[in-house]
Amino acid sequence: MAEHNTNMRLKLPVMCIVLEVILIILFGAFVEYHPDAHARGWHQYDVNNKTSNPDYENEFYYRYPSFQDVHVMIFIGFGFLMTFLQRYGFSSVGFNFLIASFSLQWATLMQGFLHGMHDSKIEVGVESMINADFCTGSVLISFGAVLGKTSPVQLLVMAIFEVTLFAINEFILLSVFYAKDAGGSMTIHTFGAYFGLMVARVLYRENLEKSKSRSTSVYHSDLFAMIGTIYLWIFWPSFNSAITAHGDDQHRTALNTYYSLAACTLATYAFSALVNHEGKLDMVHIQNAALAGGVAVGTAGEMMLTPFGSMIVGFLAGTISVLGYKYLSPVLESKLKIQDTCGVHNLHGMPGVLGAVVGILTSVAASKEVYGNGLGDVFEKIQNGRDSSTQAAMQAASLGVTLGMALLGGLIVGLILKLPIYGAPPDTLCYEDAIYWELPGEESGSEELASVKIPDESEKLNG
Amino acid sequence: MAEHNTNMRLKLPVMCIVLEVILIILFGAFVEYHPDAHARGWHQYDVNNKTSNPDYENEFYYRYPSFQDVHVMIFIGFGFLMTFLQRYGFSSVGFNFLIASFSLQWATLMQGFLHGMHDSKIEVGVESMINADFCTGSVLISFGAVLGKTSPVQLLVMAIFEVTLFAINEFILLSVFYAKDAGGSMTIHTFGAYFGLMVARVLYRENLEKSKSRSTSVYHSDLFAMIGTIYLWIFWPSFNSAITAHGDDQHRTALNTYYSLAACTLATYAFSALVNHEGKLDMVHIQNAALAGGVAVGTAGEMMLTPFGSMIVGFLAGTISVLGYKYLSPVLESKLKIQDTCGVHNLHGMPGVLGAVVGILTSVAASKEVYGNGLGDVFEKIQNGRDSSTQAAMQAASLGVTLGMALLGGLIVGLILKLPIYGAPPDTLCYEDAIYWELPGEESGSEELASVKIPDESEKLNG
Amino acid sequence: MAEHNTNMRLKLPVMCIVLEVILIILFGAFVEYHPDAHARGWHQYDVNNKTSNPDYENEFYYRYPSFQDVHVMIFIGFGFLMTFLQRYGFSSVGFNFLIASFSLQWATLMQGFLHGMHDSKIEVGVESMINADFCTGSVLISFGAVLGKTSPVQLLVMAIFEVTLFAINEFILLSVFYAKDAGGSMTIHTFGAYFGLMVARVLYRENLEKSKSRSTSVYHSDLFAMIGTIYLWIFWPSFNSAITAHGDDQHRTALNTYYSLAACTLATYAFSALVNHEGKLDMVHIQNAALAGGVAVGTAGEMMLTPFGSMIVGFLAGTISVLGYKYLSPVLESKLKIQDTCGVHNLHGMPGVLGAVVGILTSVAASKEVYGNGLGDVFEKIQNGRDSSTQAAMQAASLGVTLGMALLGGLIVGLILKLPIYGAPPDTLCYEDAIYWELPGEESGSEELASVKIPDESEKLNG
Repeated sequence: MAEHNTNMRLKLPVMCIVLEVILIILFGAFVEYHPDAHARGWHQYDVNNKTSNPDYENEFYYRYPSFQDVHVMIFIGFGFLMTFLQRYGFSSVGFNFLIASFSLQWATLMQGFLHGMHDSKIEVGVESMINADFCTGSVLISFGAVLGKTSPVQLLVMAIFEVTLFAINEFILLSVFYAKDAGGSMTIHTFGAYFGLMVARVLYRENLEKSKSRSTSVYHSDLFAMIGTIYLWIFWPSFNSAITAHGDDQHRTALNTYYSLAACTLATYAFSALVNHEGKLDMVHIQNAALAGGVAVGTAGEMMLTPFGSMIVGFLAGTISVLGYKYLSPVLESKLKIQDTCGVHNLHGMPGVLGAVVGILTSVAASKEVYGNGLGDVFEKIQNGRDSSTQAAMQAASLGVTLGMALLGGLIVGLILKLPIYGAPPDTLCYEDAIYWELPGEESGSEELASVKIPDESEKLNG
Repeated sequence: MAEHNTNMRLKLPVMCIVLEVILIILFGAFVEYHPDAHARGWHQYDVNNKTSNPDYENEFYYRYPSFQDVHVMIFIGFGFLMTFLQRYGFSSVGFNFLIASFSLQWATLMQGFLHGMHDSKIEVGVESMINADFCTGSVLISFGAVLGKTSPVQLLVMAIFEVTLFAINEFILLSVFYAKDAGGSMTIHTFGAYFGLMVARVLYRENLEKSKSRSTSVYHSDLFAMIGTIYLWIFWPSFNSAITAHGDDQHRTALNTYYSLAACTLATYAFSALVNHEGKLDMVHIQNAALAGGVAVGTAGEMMLTPFGSMIVGFLAGTISVLGYKYLSPVLESKLKIQDTCGVHNLHGMPGVLGAVVGILTSVAASKEVYGNGLGDVFEKIQNGRDSSTQAAMQAASLGVTLGMALLGGLIVGLILKLPIYGAPPDTLCYEDAIYWELPGEESGSEELASVKIPDESEKLNG
Repeated sequence: MAEHNTNMRLKLPVMCIVLEVILIILFGAFVEYHPDAHARGWHQYDVNNKTSNPDYENEFYYRYPSFQDVHVMIFIGFGFLMTFLQRYGFSSVGFNFLIASFSLQWATLMQGFLHGMHDSKIEVGVESMINADFCTGSVLISFGAVLGKTSPVQLLVMAIFEVTLFAINEFILLSVFYAKDAGGSMTIHTFGAYFGLMVARVLYRENLEKSKSRSTSVYHSDLFAMIGTIYLWIFWPSFNSAITAHGDDQHRTALNTYYSLAACTLATYAFSALVNHEGKLDMVHIQNAALAGGVAVGTAGEMMLTPFGSMIVGFLAGTISVLGYKYLSPVLESKLKIQDTCGVHNLHGMPGVLGAVVGILTSVAASKEVYGNGLGDVFEKIQNGRDSSTQAAMQAASLGVTLGMALLGGLIVGLILKLPIYGAPPDTLCYEDAIYWELPGEESGSEELASVKIPDESEKLNG
């Protein structure tokens, strides 16, 4: 079967090189430093008034620490979160690394073309880096849904389309509806989750249980995954606040996210023990549901949600996420034929929708009285006359558009990815690093694991 | 025996949900954004003078990067440091995660009630987040002393009381004595260590050797622990400087801590090899004693200690810490019946006391001549007329009060924790994740480890 | 054989204690806080004009977040990158920790004596911390070349000399030639790599294949190594921008490095699959070559290289690095007798030289037209009249001097390190933690690994 020729010797290099050459050409043609990063641009000062930009006002100092936190989340957070699978650690971290490296370049262009052009140039700086990382996050969420069942080439193809659709959806939400979504409950989480779930649906594998033995974790792989979880948890306040307005907005968003996550964690432990017959905690819940609080304040985090409100949202998010893992995921697989490897529906899907709803409700309550002169920084449209219920309606419309774009986009891209040309693994070798990676031998005793079990299979594949 | 019904199905959910509901209610009633994080508060400007707060003066930009470093220390640093135990990695990272998430919320309230009220509201912002993380650190130090011998419910109960006592002690030191302790040699390390040691004393288990096989590390668990160690080491300069005054104070504190830690590390390697018959290094020392240099400049780090002074302190701290692990810990266990799992006495106890003493000595030397116009930023009381020997006396009194509060508090809380209602593990199943966690199977060959060894025991427990 | 008495009981303590005492004395005599970290210094203000330094202009806030990123790279990045060896994880992280802690103190003095004296005092602050970490990075690169074949005492001796030579070379480049090399393509990477390679050449072991079984990775050790890789990759933009000029310079350098690394990663995956018969990816390439893009913009990153230029450089760097691992390393070992454990020639050597060349080419193109008023921040000499081709010539001379210093220095230091007095491991026990570390037992089954295999050998050694 052509589909199962998993040899990447030509496919992957051709794909990577062609994509990078295209990226380089487009960057050469369209990309320019933002004035804050441009030697001439930053030092253009008013000769008459002898004033120039003071260095401490460079955007770099407002946002670079947050950017680095986000960067850690994208590459360490997402990468290690997925290493929970016992034989898929190389691919989890490694493919995460590859598709993120591609996506952030491609996102710079797509987001730039749609809402960052100045004199037909895309200006790049710390804000575009953050935005590109955000878009990449969305792709990595979708990756979580199809983890273990896809080839790296297939993932790159998915990224090409998903980044493009993400940028379009983001443009509609932010520049047409003027919706607020700084931490991306809608643009990043809802979009990434439902897009990925739809792709997973289209790529449904009837005989996936043939790889069942590898679809679980082992003791050490769960510890590696906790590195990812904890980093995502720690830096989520930076994620949600990375592109909010300077000053109180960044400050408040970080606070709200911090409290939401703390409350979410207690809910996660509570419900994880409650839904287990012996009252034992489940690592899948801890690794994932404890993060739902960050997702759920991705829209309202910059608003005057109050710590009180944030904690309620976080508590709800943790609760629905654990319950989703326990009761909904099995149904999704058996009834809807969605094999959601990492349970992104529970971590990003439902909490993302919850976050959008919280954003709608918090927007309704926006007023000059509550926000004072800071209103314009959060809701520029309300400041300029839009009433808060219109803002809320736009937030609601944004959720609808996002779901539509994600599901339709996921359907089409899923069909494209179903073509038997990308070297996807056979049903018997899902969740297995040995297909795409030169594996080292193992320490004495378990050597047969890496080498013996696979070869006879892979010989057939390459034959 | 009721004590050994380790089933958490009701206990843990009830505990977590009740606590979180109480937290949410109290946050609703008492917590408000700090003006720097409040839309209206930050944008309140003088209409006549047309002046407003420039964004770069928002407290967020002075402290948020430090906060994130501290946050990494609390969740990754402490969490992974304790994964050295071969079968307790899930609990180490996982219970650390749970009790830290609770403690930071509870600490926000307790610290707020005691020294952060404005118009009967607790104002939260980046400073309160750092302070809450600091208090949490103290609880995690105590956790290290009882690691492996306690249930998560027991740990939450400990946290409730310890956070409260921490806030009272901190209030006495900082707001009554006007002692200086920015990095918490006394408030965090001495308090957390002696509190935890006293709790461990009360919870002494005569038959703990029944779990001896699990009380040691394995190769990989020691590497996971090194992740914790190295992160604590790297970010300790941020920890000590996180809440010192702006400008030179933060700058100097970071420098002093950096040099103290570097010197401490050389002392640690030197004495670790020296006390071993074959001259081999011991991971326990490297993982812990190398950090003592950070603890020992927790009080004087913000003062004009000089790099020279910092290095001497660090060298001493590393030395006493290694010697403590080698010679004192066995005595503490055999004579004083203190089973100190992580050796917190060596890492936080003695170095914390050393830090307090260094603080006393450095305070004596404080003068307008040395500090110039910067005196008030470090010693506001001396600036306002207190003489430096009074300041030193207050520092000494602070150490005394801290030790008293910790020991007495630990005694009482230990007795509370001794009640047989929290689901603590039996002596035969200490240091064992399988009691509280749904464990995954293991890779071929070692599968019996997780599943076979425990069940017959735990069936009895749940029976 | 005296050479193989690997017992460190006296050697290592004496070495560490003597070095630290010397460091402390020299710090006491020569080191002073930088005015930005000095209580009196920072608060010296003009009484007449009532002006003082605003806190946000303290150097701390411009550079401390970058410093912490660099610090993570040095201790986590380099430390874990080298844990790929199956039985050398303790030594990789642990010796990295030791020699880095020493080197940063020693570098503060050496760099201070050569180019940081003010009134016969070395002023330390966040910039000196970054520079010391940079110098330390160079030592750690050399460590990579001799990893597994050296004792900790030998490594400390190497560090003493290498730090000194580094400071001299740096002085020549930056203060004599006025070359630009903010991210250290030449000073750090080229110097560290060729110095280390020369040391490895001198320490050539004919019978190293006796330790061949331990010279490879295992599944989990490769995952630990990926922690190092990913952190180096994420924070490299901070590394290259840490000491560039404020404002646009730091901003631009971070951008250029980010794009270079992203492009490099795609090249790495492409060529890793291409050079493998089955099209499988090789972890050695992913762990290392993907970082070459950061090395290769270490000189030109602060210049107006453009994202386009950065991506081309990154792509080239990844390509030559993978090809180096595949085709050049075996030749270096068989023909030139250089046993380069980590392949530093491919990650730091060739990409470092590439970076120097890119710096030459980008300097030629420097002009007032391109840089505007920002010219002086990047090229102070060109701003003051030097023409750009002279600058380029100075850059070229810098590369030559660096290579000469590295090779000659490495030769001499290698000969010093060849003395049979440092307790280096015998050929049969290279890449083995058990020589220098008290190893824990292993989990059931593989216990023989740690204990059984070594003792009979090591008894002979200590006999």
